[in-house]
Amino acid sequence: MDVFAFFNLNELAFGLSKLPMFPYFDMAHYIISVMSLREQPGALCVSQRSPLACWFSSMLYCFGGAVLSALMLADAPVAPLSNTTNLLLATLMWYLVFYCPLDVVYSLASLLPLRLVLTAMKEVTRTWKVLSGVSQAGSKYSDALFVMVAVGWAKGAGGGLISNFEQLVRGVWKPETNELLKMSYPTKVTLLGAVVFSLQQCRYLPIQTHHLTFIYTLFTVTNKTRMMLLGSSSHPLSSLESFLYKTLFVRPLTDLSAEHTHSKHNGSVPEPTTAQTHTKEAEASKKTN
Amino acid sequence: MDVFAFFNLNELAFGLSKLPMFPYFDMAHYIISVMSLREQPGALCVSQRSPLACWFSSMLYCFGGAVLSALMLADAPVAPLSNTTNLLLATLMWYLVFYCPLDVVYSLASLLPLRLVLTAMKEVTRTWKVLSGVSQAGSKYSDALFVMVAVGWAKGAGGGLISNFEQLVRGVWKPETNELLKMSYPTKVTLLGAVVFSLQQCRYLPIQTHHLTFIYTLFTVTNKTRMMLLGSSSHPLSSLESFLYKTLFVRPLTDLSAEHTHSKHNGSVPEPTTAQTHTKEAEASKKTN
Amino acid sequence: MDVFAFFNLNELAFGLSKLPMFPYFDMAHYIISVMSLREQPGALCVSQRSPLACWFSSMLYCFGGAVLSALMLADAPVAPLSNTTNLLLATLMWYLVFYCPLDVVYSLASLLPLRLVLTAMKEVTRTWKVLSGVSQAGSKYSDALFVMVAVGWAKGAGGGLISNFEQLVRGVWKPETNELLKMSYPTKVTLLGAVVFSLQQCRYLPIQTHHLTFIYTLFTVTNKTRMMLLGSSSHPLSSLESFLYKTLFVRPLTDLSAEHTHSKHNGSVPEPTTAQTHTKEAEASKKTN
Repeated sequence: MDVFAFFNLNELAFGLSKLPMFPYFDMAHYIISVMSLREQPGALCVSQRSPLACWFSSMLYCFGGAVLSALMLADAPVAPLSNTTNLLLATLMWYLVFYCPLDVVYSLASLLPLRLVLTAMKEVTRTWKVLSGVSQAGSKYSDALFVMVAVGWAKGAGGGLISNFEQLVRGVWKPETNELLKMSYPTKVTLLGAVVFSLQQCRYLPIQTHHLTFIYTLFTVTNKTRMMLLGSSSHPLSSLESFLYKTLFVRPLTDLSAEHTHSKHNGSVPEPTTAQTHTKEAEASKKTN
Repeated sequence: MDVFAFFNLNELAFGLSKLPMFPYFDMAHYIISVMSLREQPGALCVSQRSPLACWFSSMLYCFGGAVLSALMLADAPVAPLSNTTNLLLATLMWYLVFYCPLDVVYSLASLLPLRLVLTAMKEVTRTWKVLSGVSQAGSKYSDALFVMVAVGWAKGAGGGLISNFEQLVRGVWKPETNELLKMSYPTKVTLLGAVVFSLQQCRYLPIQTHHLTFIYTLFTVTNKTRMMLLGSSSHPLSSLESFLYKTLFVRPLTDLSAEHTHSKHNGSVPEPTTAQTHTKEAEASKKTN
Repeated sequence: MDVFAFFNLNELAFGLSKLPMFPYFDMAHYIISVMSLREQPGALCVSQRSPLACWFSSMLYCFGGAVLSALMLADAPVAPLSNTTNLLLATLMWYLVFYCPLDVVYSLASLLPLRLVLTAMKEVTRTWKVLSGVSQAGSKYSDALFVMVAVGWAKGAGGGLISNFEQLVRGVWKPETNELLKMSYPTKVTLLGAVVFSLQQCRYLPIQTHHLTFIYTLFTVTNKTRMMLLGSSSHPLSSLESFLYKTLFVRPLTDLSAEHTHSKHNGSVPEPTTAQTHTKEAEASKKTN
């Protein structure tokens, strides 16, 4: 790529692509993951009631992507446990964040500058995970673009995608929402990454792997840092998203009558079980459509 | 089989067994599956809120059997995504049924004659799926009758059997019911198919594969067509079912008093919450035990 | 081990380790498992409404460990179905316990002396299952201690660990509790067994397999028998557990204020609904963080 040569970024990109994740970046990933678990409502209470459930939940936050992608490719989901060093590191982070005397570790890591650095480092690990998921899928199903996207996405955003079941470990069950119904920013940006890396691996994107790694890492890190500093949840993908949504998925005007009939149907047929939400949705759709 | 020779059906049966499912029968299966998703309460609303969740739900309707049987045999559940052509076809059907301008596709396919043809074609694919599930299991576990029945059933009726989890994708959770507690007609007829095909593959049924394929397909297609035309939910298996149930599973006379308490409780309250039912049954069981 | 030689227990221990589980011990395991299912609230009702769901639930009680450990090691979870003899034996026990004329089998097996013997025999099968799980994991991931513990535990206590999903088969959903949040005695003793057998297999415990088998079996059988005879739920592990808990997981003094708020909330309302707890904890965590 000429731009890379022009700015003398070739070596930087190549160096980045050779960066080892273990131990510092992995550690940052574990700390930030366990901290986001600790900030879930009820998590502190669970850490007192059942350290084992709390530990298992933390491991799903740390290794959720590896577990989910293993399940999808029919590899052993227990494999992350076989990497003893990483498991012990994650367990140490879990212990320090939840049970450290005087709560030193959590208090320190919560300070904005340190949290910013750790979060940025965690974002770097995302690139590596997406890329490894895509390659793993590609080595099993060569040129199966959709498998590569799915596995890359699962490996990079696994903790989020299995959040319903992770919550279940802590005794929390929120069936009315999940990451597919309402995607969070990390899930979206990981999907984007899985798509571009898969396209690149299938040679639809004429760019070298280490260049793409560099661009994507730069994008996720700056974006996340900006969002944390400004405290805003808007991101550069929103406009693309809303454009795609409006073009493809808004139901046409002529459907009004049909929709109306439907919502009437749904209103009239008594559905006692799930719910009030449905009735509400039916009503809402009556109004909007 | 002499009957086949007598009616000159041998060639017809053989021809049927060589019928390719792709693309027309597969397409019919996808359309009817996505249409039945669209007719679920709340599904249209989900299609507007999150096209991705709607798409994933549709894929579970279309490929649920393949996913479930892959999970059961420790094959990669992501494999259906690797068949790009079928996936794109299913995605196209999903898009047309949910978002087609003027809602042309859904309106057309809902017309009784067309829907009848499509449903009949979908029933044909069921035979193929059951048979492929049974053979797949048989090649891994030869002569393991129960594995063959289970996998054949899962492959043919997967969408129904995993419905609890498919609903969860759409934010709906109905734990109080599932296809094992209250089997629907397609699940029952698929179980019957899985049993007869497994018996045939284990050589307990002295009949050739293409003859059995012919008979079973004829049975499912005529039966489904009759049910749709008459709008009735009765089917020829009901009497066999009720006979088996009465012979094997009705609890003996000595339990009548306890049972009576049960049925009174359940009769008086039409749909009590699960918790209430539990307390009542706990009381009843205290008495009996 | 000298103690074994001293008491002439070597041959006894060796003989025990060669004891075949099939058919008597397996049968005891199936009967006791199905009986404990029958004693769940609502189970009798399910056995009348849907024998198939009841049967599937029973098989999860009987083979849950095998299914869970297969899933964890990416083996086919359908494999227990391929052992036709054991499956038929379990099915027979299920039928006799639930539908036997005059309820003879359940009434007989509920008599304390018989139940005591059967339960003791079931405890013996636990040792075999834990050991087989540990070896299975060890043959796939040699020296991966954590994998061995996890798989051994899953194989020995599988029915309990998947109880949320087993209940779902019967239409019961209790997300607010699971075996990780609140471990039962069998789950705890199986975890202990998985840990000691894994340590022994990794050669951290200098003891021979058949000696450990003997000690662990003796421990579980006497312990369970004592608990059944005294009707007490206290066990020799409680003190170890509470010591470990107090040393490792009690939050330090500086958190007292936040904790105090927590405990007050939790103390005043004995068992608040999950949603309420969440709101309270969300408020509390807002204050502390």
